[in-house]
Amino acid sequence: MATKGRSGCPISLSLELLGDRWTLLIIRDLAFAGKRHFREFLQSDEGISSRTLAERLQTLQDEGILTRSDDPSHGLKAIYRLTEAGIDLLPVLATLGAWGSKHRKADDKLARIANDIAASGEPALERMKETLRGQHLG
Amino acid sequence: MATKGRSGCPISLSLELLGDRWTLLIIRDLAFAGKRHFREFLQSDEGISSRTLAERLQTLQDEGILTRSDDPSHGLKAIYRLTEAGIDLLPVLATLGAWGSKHRKADDKLARIANDIAASGEPALERMKETLRGQHLG
Repeated sequence: MATKGRSGCPISLSLELLGDRWTLLIIRDLAFAGKRHFREFLQSDEGISSRTLAERLQTLQDEGILTRSDDPSHGLKAIYRLTEAGIDLLPVLATLGAWGSKHRKADDKLARIANDIAASGEPALERMKETLRGQHLG
Repeated sequence: MATKGRSGCPISLSLELLGDRWTLLIIRDLAFAGKRHFREFLQSDEGISSRTLAERLQTLQDEGILTRSDDPSHGLKAIYRLTEAGIDLLPVLATLGAWGSKHRKADDKLARIANDIAASGEPALERMKETLRGQHLG
């Protein structure tokens, strides 16, 4: 990331890492779509290139948002999982999903899911984080 | 925006428009820093270029996130204001600020403000939106 033009603003510091659509789409796939493998991320509707995907996964690993380990059930495959910092992005995804449901032309079914999550409030979001911890943290 | 690789996912549709650090920093400056003029956005710590700023302001205007009008108090200046869709981005900024305060090395004072906003919950966020409506809408 650029060191020029850094500020101490927490929004700006978050965007230095996350201010790129591909980065947050990878987090979405890990959090909501149950995806764990390189090939699964590639297959998402948005059509990320394998070069961009590899680069973003490496950055997210370097920055402590996800971990990469050998998948015991598939000898040659790596498995990606969210860290606690990655799971903490759930409220960011929830607010982006709610905004997109309201102000963009979203798929009806997905918009309903996003609205349900946004309307369910803080305690429900905490329960979703707890579920993600069970799925992602060793 | 690219039409290839679109999906109906509300998160993805939001990121098509907002998945760029500069875009959300302009919204931040409008929502939290009271900035309304081209020159004020240019002066933010992150050092946006005037070319990028002009391009992003135009896109945000085209997409209905902000309005541009003549500033009655400065004959030659344009004044930018958030629309209702722009004000609705407040929860996205709040969750990004909270995450950055926790997981990035943010300025202490700004981190405290971001945490206060995040901890204040839904009703306080609604009050902040109401204040922004008074400042930005007609």
